Amino acid sequence: MLLFNSRDDEYKVIVLVRQDIKMSKGKTAAQVAHAAVACALAAKKREPGVFEEWNGNGGKIVALKVDDERMLFEFKAIADEQRIVNSVISDAGRTEVNPGTCTCLGIGPEKQTLLDKITGELKML
Amino acid sequence: MLLFNSRDDEYKVIVLVRQDIKMSKGKTAAQVAHAAVACALAAKKREPGVFEEWNGNGGKIVALKVDDERMLFEFKAIADEQRIVNSVISDAGRTEVNPGTCTCLGIGPEKQTLLDKITGELKML
Repeated sequence: MLLFNSRDDEYKVIVLVRQDIKMSKGKTAAQVAHAAVACALAAKKREPGVFEEWNGNGGKIVALKVDDERMLFEFKAIADEQRIVNSVISDAGRTEVNPGTCTCLGIGPEKQTLLDKITGELKML
Repeated sequence: MLLFNSRDDEYKVIVLVRQDIKMSKGKTAAQVAHAAVACALAAKKREPGVFEEWNGNGGKIVALKVDDERMLFEFKAIADEQRIVNSVISDAGRTEVNPGTCTCLGIGPEKQTLLDKITGELKML
């Protein structure tokens, strides 16, 4: 029995997206993609077993809303404290937002049950 | 002089997103992220030099619109013909779309100039 493959305990990557900056659908998608790529590569290097379990089971990715930069970094602090792979994405600022603007935070791959304890209150994007 | 680092000739990943299926902003972002991760991992394996140039220079990702599945696969055929790394994302269908629905196509990382020749007519998402 592969416990990690059950719905409750599968691995996922969550990406927290700031709602206080205005981004188009495409820009948002690209920023979330940056976060997912950064998390995937970091996990592949640091925790190859976790990476394989996540990626081999569909590589679930979920985008969630955070109010602002402060809230984003509060979640980063929690992820750091719990030693969960995470990556803040700051934009080069060629389009839409100012250079260096932190747009989103990727967390994981980590078990769904653990991530839901941390960010379970956040709404889906 | 690092030619690949110039604005005209940098590497990028483009993700073509079907406009004939209805997806929320978050769902769209997650699908684009899947495509970017798949392309990044495939390039890292098959073309590590290209991957490093792309990822080391900000890992540009751009989301573009395609009308429907047929158009998506026409672009896939062109990418295959030109041997450009590409990945069709089909959704597990737990939410919003039917299981197995092809939602988007990631192409690259490849040089901007080449990709623009292929998909230059497509609008930004």
